[in-house]
Amino acid sequence: MKLYNFFRSGTSHRLRIAMNLKGVQAEYIGVDLRREEHRQDAYRAINPQMLVPALVEDGDVFIQSTAIIEWLEERYPDPPLLPRQVRDRAHVRAMASIIGCDIHPLNNRRVLESLRRNFAADAAAVDCWCAEWIGAGFDAIEALLAADRHRGAFCFGEAPGLADVYLVPQVESARRFNVDLQRWPLILAVDAACAELDAFRQAAPGRQPDAGANTGHAGIGVKQASQAPAG
Amino acid sequence: MKLYNFFRSGTSHRLRIAMNLKGVQAEYIGVDLRREEHRQDAYRAINPQMLVPALVEDGDVFIQSTAIIEWLEERYPDPPLLPRQVRDRAHVRAMASIIGCDIHPLNNRRVLESLRRNFAADAAAVDCWCAEWIGAGFDAIEALLAADRHRGAFCFGEAPGLADVYLVPQVESARRFNVDLQRWPLILAVDAACAELDAFRQAAPGRQPDAGANTGHAGIGVKQASQAPAG
Repeated sequence: MKLYNFFRSGTSHRLRIAMNLKGVQAEYIGVDLRREEHRQDAYRAINPQMLVPALVEDGDVFIQSTAIIEWLEERYPDPPLLPRQVRDRAHVRAMASIIGCDIHPLNNRRVLESLRRNFAADAAAVDCWCAEWIGAGFDAIEALLAADRHRGAFCFGEAPGLADVYLVPQVESARRFNVDLQRWPLILAVDAACAELDAFRQAAPGRQPDAGANTGHAGIGVKQASQAPAG
Repeated sequence: MKLYNFFRSGTSHRLRIAMNLKGVQAEYIGVDLRREEHRQDAYRAINPQMLVPALVEDGDVFIQSTAIIEWLEERYPDPPLLPRQVRDRAHVRAMASIIGCDIHPLNNRRVLESLRRNFAADAAAVDCWCAEWIGAGFDAIEALLAADRHRGAFCFGEAPGLADVYLVPQVESARRFNVDLQRWPLILAVDAACAELDAFRQAAPGRQPDAGANTGHAGIGVKQASQAPAG
């Protein structure tokens, strides 16, 4: 199995956590977004959407982290990321979706580039934009956590699951955008509980082979290094 | 069952299609986003995220269209919205996620309002912004459809499914933002196939009880009509 990834991408990060929790291993192939490697033909042939992550197994290409994580859950059911009860599964998926649909897509690299390019957004305006969507989404998750009468150490119960997989990279991203997280003590408590676990620790951006500049890591871009960037 | 909805919301629209395909009926309760009813206490008590749609059954509240539709699939498995094979399910979920995560969240009402408020975006700039994300996402879906050697009338095979549920409202939205759809003939063909089906027709925004202004429809806002808008 091959995992096409970028260390700092939130969707890549969440997929790494899910794979670690499942104990699923794959060859890590860095796709350097800073060098536009995701837009080059080599990667476009794998994922026509030209976004990370992608997972390739026996010639099958899986894209979109949400879809890949649901695939992992069906393909490798133990340990489960979703509870057994249908209504509880919907609750956990809703928390994940608040992040996956209503926070992360607004704050990712291509969107912030568009804000800078089309609306001359400066660093302060970008931080403000990110804080708006993180704040709205985290307020909702904090309210859901507070209303959970059976709340445990994680987003749902006493074992890490789908919502935690989404939450931790978003908290990491919020810190990068200088968002003050003290407003969400329950989210911070979940983040701290996750930080105790190897599955989360080993998925951290700074621990990936492509973290930092010029690591010499054999990513997808090595063969294309002498070509002009596409797009 | 109660469905909290706004006729023109894309996430509300996709949930209506999914419910129609499943034959699941619910009482329709309009939440008028134009009058900020989603931010009033009556609705906030139902959905702390203050977004539509929400579905309430026997006291259980389900939010986030992606999570609600997966719940529908588990609770009412026939007819299925996802194929049987695990790898095919991932493929269909990926097409849905391209829309659900990478197009729709960027073009919805609260985001466009933020662009107007924080970046003084005018109508042309808003159309351009929407076209950028619709174009990138539709290019990817068109490529996935073109690469499907077993392609049928719908996004996957010969029966409507999850990806179609997401695609049709996004095509409707693209038309509203004046996006020229001729670039994506396979998407247009799927949209045309869906338009033949009652489940899609009856879910159309213009057919909902809260469509148009001052319909007298008994939405959630009726009791709050004389109160000052919250927020």
